[in-house]
Amino acid sequence: MASYHVVPLERLVEQLEKMPGIGHKSAQRLAYYILNLKAEELKALTSTLEEAHEKIHYCSVCCNLTDQELCPVCASETRDRSVICVVEDPRDVFALERVNEYNGLYHVLHGTISPLSGVGPDDLCISELIKRLSDPNLKEIIMATNPTIEGEATAMYLSRLIKPMGIRVTRLAYGIPVGGDLEYADEVTLTRAMEGRREI
Amino acid sequence: MASYHVVPLERLVEQLEKMPGIGHKSAQRLAYYILNLKAEELKALTSTLEEAHEKIHYCSVCCNLTDQELCPVCASETRDRSVICVVEDPRDVFALERVNEYNGLYHVLHGTISPLSGVGPDDLCISELIKRLSDPNLKEIIMATNPTIEGEATAMYLSRLIKPMGIRVTRLAYGIPVGGDLEYADEVTLTRAMEGRREI
Repeated sequence: MASYHVVPLERLVEQLEKMPGIGHKSAQRLAYYILNLKAEELKALTSTLEEAHEKIHYCSVCCNLTDQELCPVCASETRDRSVICVVEDPRDVFALERVNEYNGLYHVLHGTISPLSGVGPDDLCISELIKRLSDPNLKEIIMATNPTIEGEATAMYLSRLIKPMGIRVTRLAYGIPVGGDLEYADEVTLTRAMEGRREI
Repeated sequence: MASYHVVPLERLVEQLEKMPGIGHKSAQRLAYYILNLKAEELKALTSTLEEAHEKIHYCSVCCNLTDQELCPVCASETRDRSVICVVEDPRDVFALERVNEYNGLYHVLHGTISPLSGVGPDDLCISELIKRLSDPNLKEIIMATNPTIEGEATAMYLSRLIKPMGIRVTRLAYGIPVGGDLEYADEVTLTRAMEGRREI
């Protein structure tokens, strides 16, 4: 390799490698894709990047991503304003909306409390959530953080903060994933599934 | 999902999904990465894309990628000009250069003959290769196209074209990959490995 250096190509691969889930090989593949784009296709790609980056920001109420002042859920007149579902990430909102089951509001924390990674409560959108608790319509907060150590800790932290205000705090059910196989379920999940069993 | 649409975000995910090896989930992940970049990081990314796209083109001799008139290999004074190694893709040149074994020249076809995908000889950098055959120093052409049906067909097509000119045409050896396991080698590879066996 000593003899072969094309600086702009190396710089391109370097930039692409920084992206999550993109290793060196994938970055090379993407680089060749980009080099083979027509001039107008490249323009479309870079201007979409710039436009999205410029226009998208946090919703002033729920901290989800939006290009408006309020996100579509917060702006909607048909959503149930008595429930807020607290999630870690905007992608979780997309996942829940896809189900078409939930009609309440959301709150996006943009992460979890994780002392090991140096993420404390102040680094998350928690103060924005606290502000919303004074709404007299609000009856329930559903903790829908991920079932990981950090997700659990964050749910616990928030429920201790919110419960004293007389608002009901719930957590998503744990159990066997539908379509899953008992044989492959881990012990903690099985224990939780037993604990959470219901009359049929 | 009916209620949740953020147009610039959807457009961004759409653009990213067009890239090779990037599915919908990866595109979403990349989109959030891009939205979280600082303004100057985004500028660095887009300008690297634009710079690479603008500056990088084919070497006027071997069709490899370069930002100069000649690629580093063609411009080098220490390379053996009696051998040309014909490859499908610029990445193959990188792979061979990494080995530090080969000191000859390269020729990049930018694809293989593939009638099913509508790629004929005229769509590849074959005329550029033919031009190089009149060099009196040239003694050997090594066909290093991939061991696929298209790679083989392209190697055959080129060797029929070149052999009548009195230039030696060789093909990379087939066999068991070093560190591989006989048990997992396919039949064709095993047959080729037997055929290509050598005195030890």
